[in-house]
Amino acid sequence: MSTTDLSTAVNHQVRLAARPVGLPTDACWQLTQEPLTPPTPGGVLVKVLALSLDPAMRGWMNEGRSYIPPVGIGEVMRAGGVGVVVASDSPAFAIGQHVSGGFGVQEYAHIGGDQLRHSGLSRIDLRAGSVTQWLNVLGMPGMTAYFGLLEVGHPQPGQTVVVSGAAGAVGQTVGQLARIKGCRVVGIAGGRDKCDWVVRELGFDACIDYKGGDVKAGLKEHCPKGVDVYFDNVGGDILDDVLTRITRHARIVICGAISQYNNTTPVQGPKNYLSLLVNRARMEGMVVFDYADRYPQAVTELAGYLRDGRLKSREDVVRGGVQDFPATLLKLFSGANFGKLVLQLADA
Amino acid sequence: MSTTDLSTAVNHQVRLAARPVGLPTDACWQLTQEPLTPPTPGGVLVKVLALSLDPAMRGWMNEGRSYIPPVGIGEVMRAGGVGVVVASDSPAFAIGQHVSGGFGVQEYAHIGGDQLRHSGLSRIDLRAGSVTQWLNVLGMPGMTAYFGLLEVGHPQPGQTVVVSGAAGAVGQTVGQLARIKGCRVVGIAGGRDKCDWVVRELGFDACIDYKGGDVKAGLKEHCPKGVDVYFDNVGGDILDDVLTRITRHARIVICGAISQYNNTTPVQGPKNYLSLLVNRARMEGMVVFDYADRYPQAVTELAGYLRDGRLKSREDVVRGGVQDFPATLLKLFSGANFGKLVLQLADA
Repeated sequence: MSTTDLSTAVNHQVRLAARPVGLPTDACWQLTQEPLTPPTPGGVLVKVLALSLDPAMRGWMNEGRSYIPPVGIGEVMRAGGVGVVVASDSPAFAIGQHVSGGFGVQEYAHIGGDQLRHSGLSRIDLRAGSVTQWLNVLGMPGMTAYFGLLEVGHPQPGQTVVVSGAAGAVGQTVGQLARIKGCRVVGIAGGRDKCDWVVRELGFDACIDYKGGDVKAGLKEHCPKGVDVYFDNVGGDILDDVLTRITRHARIVICGAISQYNNTTPVQGPKNYLSLLVNRARMEGMVVFDYADRYPQAVTELAGYLRDGRLKSREDVVRGGVQDFPATLLKLFSGANFGKLVLQLADA
Repeated sequence: MSTTDLSTAVNHQVRLAARPVGLPTDACWQLTQEPLTPPTPGGVLVKVLALSLDPAMRGWMNEGRSYIPPVGIGEVMRAGGVGVVVASDSPAFAIGQHVSGGFGVQEYAHIGGDQLRHSGLSRIDLRAGSVTQWLNVLGMPGMTAYFGLLEVGHPQPGQTVVVSGAAGAVGQTVGQLARIKGCRVVGIAGGRDKCDWVVRELGFDACIDYKGGDVKAGLKEHCPKGVDVYFDNVGGDILDDVLTRITRHARIVICGAISQYNNTTPVQGPKNYLSLLVNRARMEGMVVFDYADRYPQAVTELAGYLRDGRLKSREDVVRGGVQDFPATLLKLFSGANFGKLVLQLADA
C-alpha cells in the first residue's frame, strides 16, 4: 500500500454536466471533489501530472454511436494523461512508477485491479521523453501519426505528402516522419508563426498559411507534381482544395475534421469527392486504437528519432488545475494552441 | 478492300456543338453528314450496329481535366459501339467480322491503320452474347462491374453488398456477380418495377425503391449486419444514407454519381463522410480503362455465367438513327431507361 500519506487529500474532478451544442460552454461542465480512497484490491492510485487535450474530446461529448461510447452525463470527462503511481496494491506497479493511461480530467485516478489489463495503463520511461512528450510524439498523437501515415497513407520515397493541422500534435509528427521516409512534405497551418516553425524547425519543404492566403494556389506552387498522400486533420474547405490536386492512386487519410466538430449545421461534405473517381484515389478513415498491439514498435522507432535529433516536438503546456480544463480545451478549436495542447497539473 | 458497294453511302453523325449547362439540350448537338470514303492504308471501315449510351457521356461533354480529355466542340460525340467490318485494308480484320470499339455517334467509323492497336477495336463473337449484350455485360458496363466489385470492393462470402442504380447497366451485373461470389445483395433502384425485376429475375436478396420510400429505413431492414461493400453509381443523398450503415472496414466503390452530373450547383459532397473515420472504412474511385489488359479474363468468366444461366442481362434497346441519340441520352438522367440503354442503328 501507499507510503505517502494521502488520507487528507481530496480529488478534484471535471465532469460532463450537459452535452454541448456547438462550442462547449461552462454549462457543459461540473467541478466536483471527492475524498481520496486507497487502491482497490490489486489496483493502483495514480497522481495525474499532465492531461492530453485532444480534438477528439469534442466527439466524445456528443451522444450517439462513434468509435467509442460517449462520455455519460455526470461522468468524469475522458482524457488521456501521464501520472505517477502514489499507492499500489499491484505487484506490477511500484510507487513512483511513471505511467500513462486514460485517467480522466481529475487529480487522482483509480485503476482497479480487474481493469489493469484493459485500461491501457502503461509504464513509461522519462529518459525516452518528457512528461509532455509522452502525451505527444510518444503518446496518442504520435501513434496516430505513425500508423495513419505509414499504414493508411503508404507514402513512397519521392512522393509528396500534405498534412493539415501541421503545427498540431498529430501534424507535426506526420510531416517529420514523412520527411524521414524520403517524401516531399507540405504543411497547412493557421498563421505565419506556425508555418515558419514547421519549415525552419521541423524541416518541412513548405507550409501554406490557410488564414493568410489561397490554399489552392499554395498547393499548386508547392506540390508541382500533385499530392500523393494527404493526411487530413481538419476537413472542410481545405479537404476540398486538396482534392483538386491529388495524383492518380492518391491516398487521403481521414484522421479528423476539427473544422467541423463544433458545427451546429450538418458536416460539410467534400464536394470534390469525385476527384477520387477521376484519380482512382482512396479516402480512408483510421482510429489509432486499432494499432494498440503495435504501439511499442512505434514508440521505439519514434524515441530513436527523438534521441538522434531527427524528430522534434512542441507542446503548448498550460500549467494549472483541473478547473482550467474547460477554457484550455477551447484553445484547440480557435487554433490558439501552438503544438500539442497539454494541461500540466504537477511536476514529474 | 470492300466487296460491298459503299460508294453512294453517306455517313450521318452527331457532333458536339456546345457544352451543356445542366441537362444537354438540342443546342448542344449538330447533325452532320459526310460521303463515305474507303479505309485508310492498313485501316478498316466499320458499319455501326449499336451504340452504348452511358452516364459518363455527360462528363465527356464538360470542359476540363478528367480521366480522359473532353470531347471537343465540333467533334463527333464519343461513344462505344458494336459494328461489323464493311471494308478492310487490314489483314487482321476481315469483312463481316463483328467488332466493338469507340466508334462515336455515327453510322460508319473509320479506324486508321496506325490506330488499330490503340483504338480498343476488338473482335467479338456473337455466339458468346448478342450485339446488345456486348455493350452490356460483355462490354464496358460488365467490365466496370467486374473490376470495380472484385478489385476495389473486395467482397467476401457472407458479406452484404449494396449497389445503387441496381437495374442499370453496371448495377445489374454488380449485384448478380456479388451473389455468385456468395454475398447478400441489396439493390437500390427507382420504382417498383425495377426493384421487382432485380429481386425476381436477377435474384437480389432485396431492393429498395428510392422513389417510393425511405432508403435509410430500407437499409436498416435489409442489411441487418450493415453494409460491407457499397458500389455507388449515383452519389447524392443515397450515398449519405449508405454511409450511416457501413460496417467496420467497409469499402465504398465510387463508380459514378449520376444524380450529380447535370447539377448547375456544386456537387453535393457526402456530409456523412466521417463515417469512414468511425468505421475505418474506405471510399475509392475506379476507372474501368485501367483494367483493359484483363478484359479478356473478365469476358470469359462473365460469358460463362451467361451461358449457364447464372447471369442475366437486360438492355433497353431504342431502335432508330443517330438523330435519335440526343433524346435517347436524356432517358438515362430521368431514370426512364430500364436496363442498359442502347441505340440500335441496324441489325447484326
